[in-house]
Amino acid sequence: MRYSEQMIEGRNAVTEALRAGKSIDKVFLLEGAGEHGLDTIRKELKKHPETKLIYVKKERLDSMSETGKHQGVIAAAAAYDYASVEDILKAAEDRGEPPFIIILDGIEDPHNLGAILRTANLCGAHGVIIRQDRAVGLTATVAKASAGAINYTPVAKVTNISRTMEKLKKEGLWFVCADMSGELMYRLDLKGPIGLVIGNEGSGVSELVRKTCDMTASIPMKGDIDSLNASVACGVLCYEILRQRDFS
Amino acid sequence: MRYSEQMIEGRNAVTEALRAGKSIDKVFLLEGAGEHGLDTIRKELKKHPETKLIYVKKERLDSMSETGKHQGVIAAAAAYDYASVEDILKAAEDRGEPPFIIILDGIEDPHNLGAILRTANLCGAHGVIIRQDRAVGLTATVAKASAGAINYTPVAKVTNISRTMEKLKKEGLWFVCADMSGELMYRLDLKGPIGLVIGNEGSGVSELVRKTCDMTASIPMKGDIDSLNASVACGVLCYEILRQRDFS
Repeated sequence: MRYSEQMIEGRNAVTEALRAGKSIDKVFLLEGAGEHGLDTIRKELKKHPETKLIYVKKERLDSMSETGKHQGVIAAAAAYDYASVEDILKAAEDRGEPPFIIILDGIEDPHNLGAILRTANLCGAHGVIIRQDRAVGLTATVAKASAGAINYTPVAKVTNISRTMEKLKKEGLWFVCADMSGELMYRLDLKGPIGLVIGNEGSGVSELVRKTCDMTASIPMKGDIDSLNASVACGVLCYEILRQRDFS
Repeated sequence: MRYSEQMIEGRNAVTEALRAGKSIDKVFLLEGAGEHGLDTIRKELKKHPETKLIYVKKERLDSMSETGKHQGVIAAAAAYDYASVEDILKAAEDRGEPPFIIILDGIEDPHNLGAILRTANLCGAHGVIIRQDRAVGLTATVAKASAGAINYTPVAKVTNISRTMEKLKKEGLWFVCADMSGELMYRLDLKGPIGLVIGNEGSGVSELVRKTCDMTASIPMKGDIDSLNASVACGVLCYEILRQRDFS
């Protein structure tokens, strides 16, 4: 299992975890506790709107505690054992297939990230690369939305997407991103070692990453609006890659 | 515009709207108001966990009010002008295309429904049919997730999905649902007048509806988990239908 939930107990441990930017899903605080020591945590929590604050009775904290020393606070953190980009390449090699990697350039919605991990797992992608900054990480919501895929499909986190792409080009990968202005996906050759780049829900693929791509693919659009949901667009493109690889 | 938000003002109007099962997204209640008259609304709201209760100051209610007679309560309701199944068939006829209808047999997640409306609009489907009971309706969350598609692609609501399918069969439609046990989607002929059935996120397509389908399509699955996200599966199948219709 790559993903698990980890309990962090005690005032200092929880404060430090919050300050270190760990992905904390919930903080359980002692109901009616005095301010001493816990106000630091409350203050820290204001900077983390994604973390739920739940007030509980002492008995509940005692029963949750593994150390017996919770000091009035326990945090539930997402613990994910990230893969490296090399792990992903090795997964492709082990299966004797040309690498197929999904690169997420700033996906922000945890439901989209979870749905993309499900797709990655089922369409035969060897792994997913996400951006360290600003984008959503592997939280409990993502884990749930991934329906278990988070434990199978390796996810690597990198600081600079375009630099990682440049390195992967040396390993023989070609990169394709989606854009309405691109070549119709059916007309592109997507069979070889490939990286599929999916951009942010609102702003799409960032300029530098777009320039690093070798191809731009368009999904046919016959309607009135501008774009598909990001996880649906990713699914349609992944299955076009699978169709070309396995069924043509 | 098929979708809009409607303000309902006053104690009786809001209570009746809640009782009539209207899709109410938010209720704004006067902060610190006495129990008289408003406790009925609070009681009614307990039966509607999907409705957000927001306490606001009198000035805010006054400025929201169009009638000037809010009596301490204003509700924001989703108002959607549903299409009929005939409207959807007519949309296909007007475009000179064989009908392509998406039938949702119990989608519960508003984000999935919104994403499916986006897909329906862009893949050339002529409309979407949803179930009256238990499933999610066209709420503000769905409208937002649909990125505008809710105003273009007609949605019809029916009480009995399989009976509607039987009627549509007389109009020449064939029905396909998705299931792992089905024939690989590439091997089915999906070019003619078609209804694509998507089941509930957890339990899939219901037994009677499944039996009413003419074909079962499977999406290739190379991974470890059981299923794609419902809106992603719908997207992959819709785009296979579009590929067969327009690009083969």
